[in-house]
Amino acid sequence: MVKEHQLKLHNSLSGNKETFVPINQEYVGMYVCGPTVYSNVHLGNVRTFMSFDMIYRYLRHLGYKVRYVRNITDVGHLLDDSDEDKISKKARLEQLEPMEIVQKYTVDFHEVLRKFNNIPPNVEPTATGHIVEQIEITQELIEKGLAYVSNGSVYFDVKKYNDQGGDYGVLSNRNIDELFANTRVLDGQDEKRNPQDFALWKQALPEHIMRWPSPWGDGFPGWHLECTVMSTKYLGEQFDIHGGGMDLKFPHHECEIAQAKGAYGHSPVTYWLHANMLTLNGQKMSKSTGNTILPEELMTGNNEFFDKGFSPMVIRFFMMQAHYRSMLDFSNDALLASEKGYSRLMEAVKTLENLQPSGSSSVDIKQWVAKCYAAMDDDFNTPILIAHLFDAVKMINSIKDQTETIHPDDLIRLNDVFKAMIVEVLGLKEEQMAGNEDKLDGVVKMLIEMRKQARVDKDWALSDQIRDQLAALGIVLNDGKEGTTYTF
Amino acid sequence: MVKEHQLKLHNSLSGNKETFVPINQEYVGMYVCGPTVYSNVHLGNVRTFMSFDMIYRYLRHLGYKVRYVRNITDVGHLLDDSDEDKISKKARLEQLEPMEIVQKYTVDFHEVLRKFNNIPPNVEPTATGHIVEQIEITQELIEKGLAYVSNGSVYFDVKKYNDQGGDYGVLSNRNIDELFANTRVLDGQDEKRNPQDFALWKQALPEHIMRWPSPWGDGFPGWHLECTVMSTKYLGEQFDIHGGGMDLKFPHHECEIAQAKGAYGHSPVTYWLHANMLTLNGQKMSKSTGNTILPEELMTGNNEFFDKGFSPMVIRFFMMQAHYRSMLDFSNDALLASEKGYSRLMEAVKTLENLQPSGSSSVDIKQWVAKCYAAMDDDFNTPILIAHLFDAVKMINSIKDQTETIHPDDLIRLNDVFKAMIVEVLGLKEEQMAGNEDKLDGVVKMLIEMRKQARVDKDWALSDQIRDQLAALGIVLNDGKEGTTYTF
Repeated sequence: MVKEHQLKLHNSLSGNKETFVPINQEYVGMYVCGPTVYSNVHLGNVRTFMSFDMIYRYLRHLGYKVRYVRNITDVGHLLDDSDEDKISKKARLEQLEPMEIVQKYTVDFHEVLRKFNNIPPNVEPTATGHIVEQIEITQELIEKGLAYVSNGSVYFDVKKYNDQGGDYGVLSNRNIDELFANTRVLDGQDEKRNPQDFALWKQALPEHIMRWPSPWGDGFPGWHLECTVMSTKYLGEQFDIHGGGMDLKFPHHECEIAQAKGAYGHSPVTYWLHANMLTLNGQKMSKSTGNTILPEELMTGNNEFFDKGFSPMVIRFFMMQAHYRSMLDFSNDALLASEKGYSRLMEAVKTLENLQPSGSSSVDIKQWVAKCYAAMDDDFNTPILIAHLFDAVKMINSIKDQTETIHPDDLIRLNDVFKAMIVEVLGLKEEQMAGNEDKLDGVVKMLIEMRKQARVDKDWALSDQIRDQLAALGIVLNDGKEGTTYTF
Repeated sequence: MVKEHQLKLHNSLSGNKETFVPINQEYVGMYVCGPTVYSNVHLGNVRTFMSFDMIYRYLRHLGYKVRYVRNITDVGHLLDDSDEDKISKKARLEQLEPMEIVQKYTVDFHEVLRKFNNIPPNVEPTATGHIVEQIEITQELIEKGLAYVSNGSVYFDVKKYNDQGGDYGVLSNRNIDELFANTRVLDGQDEKRNPQDFALWKQALPEHIMRWPSPWGDGFPGWHLECTVMSTKYLGEQFDIHGGGMDLKFPHHECEIAQAKGAYGHSPVTYWLHANMLTLNGQKMSKSTGNTILPEELMTGNNEFFDKGFSPMVIRFFMMQAHYRSMLDFSNDALLASEKGYSRLMEAVKTLENLQPSGSSSVDIKQWVAKCYAAMDDDFNTPILIAHLFDAVKMINSIKDQTETIHPDDLIRLNDVFKAMIVEVLGLKEEQMAGNEDKLDGVVKMLIEMRKQARVDKDWALSDQIRDQLAALGIVLNDGKEGTTYTF
């Protein structure tokens, strides 16, 4: 059963917030463009995937049965002005086979997302796993006259598509007629009829390692095609939500719409959602300027931008403090503030567990619950939700201090929604603090010192008590020449 | 540089231990049959993958550059006497799309192997990712007259293969002529010419969801074919090591040899390695009799066979105490004994760090090192290696107690090899003991009690000291009406 709700989401297609109406009542099909696995996943991508993880979580929380598909792009698409693709280039640099590169960075990707407590998607298809289907749809588009073969490659004919009523440009709001009028005429060297045309299938040059046979000779699929094939294979020709980073809106998603409309005759997606970018200390993140940081470096503190490392949950909390469609700037001060906020929030979860109810409530929990849902229903407004959660933190602490009171029914309601929003929706969890090992070591050493003092004081009872109680906890003291050590 | 060594391994093909000579000097190609992802990985499979993880680790430790390929079987092969395949059946039972089943159990598989500290393979190809290649090799075998089309399916003609000089039966040591002489004649209903023939491609019935177009109509590849295609694609037509569980020797690996010899004209693999099975309390593990346990259940203790849960590292250590080609019985007592042994071993790692060297050695470290390598070089004899490691534990403790002495050079040698064998080769690591949280809680509560007593005794100095020292460790005491609590 889906909870009663009034979810609105910002549709990039219309530029407006629209009421969410799934195609099949309680079922939701959601496709998100996954990573190209030729390098460590960067922080901006992590934010995109975390944003859609939150959206997936909220839809599930509302009671929808969501089929969430996120692909792995394991065919390395061509770099600009180069015949070499990204994965092959990395394979050459690292002296590995392309599929070793794919495996190495797929493992990294999964590992990083696991640390950030992202739920794996329901289907995680790969481009190489759908070569047959990509060849099929390319043939279909050729048969429909919307694609043409040129020198062993196949291109989508954007002009013809638009001339026949297509709407290439609809998502990115580009006036394509103008684009056609203003672009240079191709010099005849190009295989393409028009610069706007994009590859469905590329001929493999002799040096290409990743290649498959096709009706047009050995080659490999164009990047845009795989998402059309995999989204429709697992979600149907028309599905509810398609997500991705803002940078994919054009040309990638624009091309997806054209391919699907061309092949199936209708628009594939009801709601297009795009997550915004990150900056680092106010500047665009960029490998070439060095203004960039890997998730792992942010966690360990092994980097030049931050004073210390931040735990995955603090980073997640920090990201959730911004709306997914807003820019977000990473800085030392902002993360330190989030670290404090996160601790306060998780403290309140514990305090809540021990709250004592009263005969009546002096706090308005019903209204608070309504506000939380209103925030999330407003295009997944997590920063507003978090503001409401901190209102609850205040309430919880006031109830604990007995300056406010809460009725048992309200306490149950507060407990349910507070935890659901933190754990289920925002995906935050109690950290296994890395520092616990140190704390335990420190505390045991405190007791060893106290026992030493007790022995100096000839307080044998205390000395034995410390040793025996520690032993009961599985901590064995060993008195040696160079002092007392302990083992578990 | 590969270390000097004399590795011998048991080749299932000859039934003998043979000296290991890789095809390309320091490079080793190793393929291991991975899981069919339609259910939680079972403990027997975990043992197989852990055995090859140890083999992979030892080869790397010797200095070989190993390309380790382990596939994911995500096409669900047919159940006996059924037109339904395993993945589709599970999809129907769980009301999921087949690729959701694949994803669910691939995630489980990776998660379980990660807990057991297995290193991911270098390439992890999927059957669905190699449909094109499987169709190609099927065509090749048809063209060579070694396969025939029958009713939209394609079968490998075992009799013809053997009549033309093939050696089907070579791995499993079966006399195929006898087999042909003794098997019933097919009743004409069967699509196959002989019962020994096996499917390269199966026609998809209308109810089959997993299907691809082919020259013989819609269908799906036969199980044996994917391993031939994926092993040779990533390791070449001839490679060094092929591993798998004992149960795969026939027919799976036998068919792989026939397919590769048929298609490429030579034997694909130099060394065939097979890992042995598990029993539980002396009985065969079997879902139907209920004598079975999942890795997760063994870790949590949530099962009817064991008194408590065992950590992944204890289970790994236990498995390493048996030779990979021997049967291994899981029982409560055996695991409890391993738990103690594992603790002793890891204690010794710590003790070793603080050992003081002397002017000379009373222990023979060179001989000990030679014994460790001799054990591993003898077909990866981990139980013998572990016996030598415990000899080292004795030495380490004797040196600590100053009943033995060690020269600085020997100490370095002992330290290097002891840790390398434990960490790199056996893949054991210090556990993040689950109990540490409890220990920390217990110890902090001890200090709270001691502070309470100090306050009763009006020993304010001690009371403050406890509070302040805990605060310095990041543990904050909160005195309330109902006693003192603490927060981090």
